[in-house]
Amino acid sequence: MDIIAGIAATLLDQLQKPTLAFLIGGMLLASLGSKFEVPEPVYKFIVILLLLKVGLGAGISVREAELSELVLPALLAAGVGIGIVVLGAVTLAKLRGVSQTDGLATAGLFGAVSASTLAAGMAVLDDEGIAYEGFIGALYPFMDVAALVTAIVLARLAMARRTTPVGGGTMALGGGQAPRLDKGLLRGILVDTLRSPAISALLVGLAIGLFADPASVYGSFYEPLFRGLLSVLMLIMGIEAWSRLSELRRVAHAYVAYGLLAPLVHGALGFGAGVIAHHMTGFSEGGIVLLAVMAASSSDISGPPTMRGALPEANPSAYVGTSTGLGTPVAILSIPLWIALAAQVVGGGA
Amino acid sequence: MDIIAGIAATLLDQLQKPTLAFLIGGMLLASLGSKFEVPEPVYKFIVILLLLKVGLGAGISVREAELSELVLPALLAAGVGIGIVVLGAVTLAKLRGVSQTDGLATAGLFGAVSASTLAAGMAVLDDEGIAYEGFIGALYPFMDVAALVTAIVLARLAMARRTTPVGGGTMALGGGQAPRLDKGLLRGILVDTLRSPAISALLVGLAIGLFADPASVYGSFYEPLFRGLLSVLMLIMGIEAWSRLSELRRVAHAYVAYGLLAPLVHGALGFGAGVIAHHMTGFSEGGIVLLAVMAASSSDISGPPTMRGALPEANPSAYVGTSTGLGTPVAILSIPLWIALAAQVVGGGA
Amino acid sequence: MDIIAGIAATLLDQLQKPTLAFLIGGMLLASLGSKFEVPEPVYKFIVILLLLKVGLGAGISVREAELSELVLPALLAAGVGIGIVVLGAVTLAKLRGVSQTDGLATAGLFGAVSASTLAAGMAVLDDEGIAYEGFIGALYPFMDVAALVTAIVLARLAMARRTTPVGGGTMALGGGQAPRLDKGLLRGILVDTLRSPAISALLVGLAIGLFADPASVYGSFYEPLFRGLLSVLMLIMGIEAWSRLSELRRVAHAYVAYGLLAPLVHGALGFGAGVIAHHMTGFSEGGIVLLAVMAASSSDISGPPTMRGALPEANPSAYVGTSTGLGTPVAILSIPLWIALAAQVVGGGA
Repeated sequence: MDIIAGIAATLLDQLQKPTLAFLIGGMLLASLGSKFEVPEPVYKFIVILLLLKVGLGAGISVREAELSELVLPALLAAGVGIGIVVLGAVTLAKLRGVSQTDGLATAGLFGAVSASTLAAGMAVLDDEGIAYEGFIGALYPFMDVAALVTAIVLARLAMARRTTPVGGGTMALGGGQAPRLDKGLLRGILVDTLRSPAISALLVGLAIGLFADPASVYGSFYEPLFRGLLSVLMLIMGIEAWSRLSELRRVAHAYVAYGLLAPLVHGALGFGAGVIAHHMTGFSEGGIVLLAVMAASSSDISGPPTMRGALPEANPSAYVGTSTGLGTPVAILSIPLWIALAAQVVGGGA
Repeated sequence: MDIIAGIAATLLDQLQKPTLAFLIGGMLLASLGSKFEVPEPVYKFIVILLLLKVGLGAGISVREAELSELVLPALLAAGVGIGIVVLGAVTLAKLRGVSQTDGLATAGLFGAVSASTLAAGMAVLDDEGIAYEGFIGALYPFMDVAALVTAIVLARLAMARRTTPVGGGTMALGGGQAPRLDKGLLRGILVDTLRSPAISALLVGLAIGLFADPASVYGSFYEPLFRGLLSVLMLIMGIEAWSRLSELRRVAHAYVAYGLLAPLVHGALGFGAGVIAHHMTGFSEGGIVLLAVMAASSSDISGPPTMRGALPEANPSAYVGTSTGLGTPVAILSIPLWIALAAQVVGGGA
Repeated sequence: MDIIAGIAATLLDQLQKPTLAFLIGGMLLASLGSKFEVPEPVYKFIVILLLLKVGLGAGISVREAELSELVLPALLAAGVGIGIVVLGAVTLAKLRGVSQTDGLATAGLFGAVSASTLAAGMAVLDDEGIAYEGFIGALYPFMDVAALVTAIVLARLAMARRTTPVGGGTMALGGGQAPRLDKGLLRGILVDTLRSPAISALLVGLAIGLFADPASVYGSFYEPLFRGLLSVLMLIMGIEAWSRLSELRRVAHAYVAYGLLAPLVHGALGFGAGVIAHHMTGFSEGGIVLLAVMAASSSDISGPPTMRGALPEANPSAYVGTSTGLGTPVAILSIPLWIALAAQVVGGGA
């Protein structure tokens, strides 16, 4: 009971922290019908700065880290991304009213990572004074790309299986069009995903952090602006989440259940992976929290356009509504949960 | 004579202060035909940040203030807002070439508050080291909403009186359509005004400041950016003021006289209200100045669209031209006047 | 050999400096087909802030400087601007496949100044701890306006000469339309150039720096933001440069040679002018570098629209492709060259 009380107290305390308060403020604004809005170009720029910041920070840290420390978390991050999509394929995609393609597109977004949610997690940890590996940002693309590629490949294979007449075998890989799908497609999806604005912003930051010496501009500009711009971004996400909710009325109820529960299940997966890394390589308490936050989050920037491009058959109301309307706010609001849990599991007390 | 010399010296000194210098710089640019412009989305974002800053600051202060301290200034602020509109109704709206609706729309904007002007007032006071109540930003919606609602209600009543055939009595309230106007209309105007982007930004900032703990992001982001963004905003306002001036050629001369004199008369009203609060509850010298500045200012962000929505019959060239072209620059440039006056009346010397 | 080794070492070292790393990062992004982009309004705003910063800084410094110190560098800057255009007229404009108008438009842009390149130069010098005159920003309009006016006048004169039938004499000044061109045209070009967004932003900053007292907002906002925004701008310039390169395929090869070599030749001209000023009035080592950087740079903001307006006959693919695609990155990447050279020539060692 003490554990639960401790978690509940931490949760209540956290909801008053500015990062979450701005999210709730944005949802309130939208729910009250406010005409407040942040212009699109400014929103895009804020996201770019956050991604550059996360990338630069990771690049600077990776240079100082031993590569061996990075390998296990990276593999685990990719594994969690793939695991989330496979889990979605055997649950969501089989529920009533959910087409296989729509279900996989949704699972893909939930496996991918939201830069804003990760940034919010970092900000909350900084506030609490909980340390985490500087290279965490470098794990982002591993989970994100793995999930998007898995979802798109599975959806394409399923479509090929449906269109391939008879005798396709249990695995479409042996069937008619499958080999063509595998090679060119995989490469195409990978290239498309890496070229997406969010992943490129992160990677260029990572590269500059690795090969140049941006510590002074990082410390004087990207770091200080980060917290402030994040507060504005949380307002925008809150407004966006609320207005996306209405789209869910038009799709099956299964999406609502998935949007509410999946972030918690996925976060637990990421949390578990973090605990494994903690015992094997001494991965930090804050690192466990951020791996859980990444896993819990669903892509809101690069994911939706990638899906639209790769799976034009999927219904955006379903996957964007579920991820932006429910997945993102649930993931952000559950950040304190992972902090409280990590304190219990690893830190040895609240 | 010493008093006037003191005021004149302060005025001259203030015109060299950056806040006012950027306004004059913007007017110069526009008058010389420069093609310089700040993109619309950036302008909107600067205004949002200023409003969030004012709201957050007020929220943080209100939490620490005793509610009783706030009540009198809030009532006075609302009273000044209503007073300015009523004054406009018995003067401007009766002048030659001014339709009653246009006159009331203009008086409504002059009663409403300009966030930029208030922000400029705060910046100048900060520069001078003159203290003011932190909750001042919380007075903004009281004056703003009171003025807009009064102006729209008066204009609608006047229109109803005109369309109501005979025997409507002296008060339209007793006439045909009037009761319908009163209930639904008042509620509609209130809701519309509170949902306007400017008021919502201010209120969400106020709410977050009150219920969460945003002091660190306020201190590290909103406060430091405030002065710099204000300088850019002053440039924009100067350019905007100059280019709106030409619209005044198309409307009656009465608007020019009103635009030049009203900010001073209204500022004196606000100043008087501030002095009353000073003697009753110890309202500060800086608070008096800011109440005068709010009263002198005319709405440039949320006011015009609110008017357009509520009074489509009114001529925007008249009310926007008068308020943005004359009212705003006169109000900003008269900030030093209220400072000098407050030093004489309350501070006991220049 | 020691000198060359010293220069090479400095160059290699500099390419890792963040300012240049972000430029290279942007070029990499574009070359890899990334969909990363910074929204246009944000790009414009960043440029405005940089220009205001350069102007304000120059204005504040000019107030403190003796006017006599400024006269020689200003005359030299104007002379270099004119010299670059005349040099272009006798070389580029006579090459195969280059029309006289296109050649002069290109030379005009290369004579004009890029605010981003100048800002990059200042940032690199700040990093190195190399001092330069605060008033350097005030030299910008002298070189920029001189070059643009010279190019447009020469192009118009050449066109007039071609359309004037026979017996026009060797100088078109004696010919049919020439006198008309000279008076009204010169005035028109001057006014147009001074009203362009870039030059006006710089001049209004200069005026505010000179006549008001913006030191606090300069120190708390413009200075600190400068380095960070410059890093974003370098990313944008890198992307822009790469994507403009393709336009060069459609024009004569002469442009490619000019775009690669001209910045170095022009930089050497500016460097020489700086050394003259150094020996005559003690112009600083950093000042020499910045004069070289200004001369090496080609206009990317105000130049192209000025050219389009004044010389609608010229082909933008030629002049914009050459200056933005080649001139700007070569100029930025050669900043370390001038630093290394100045250390050898003036500083007395690497």
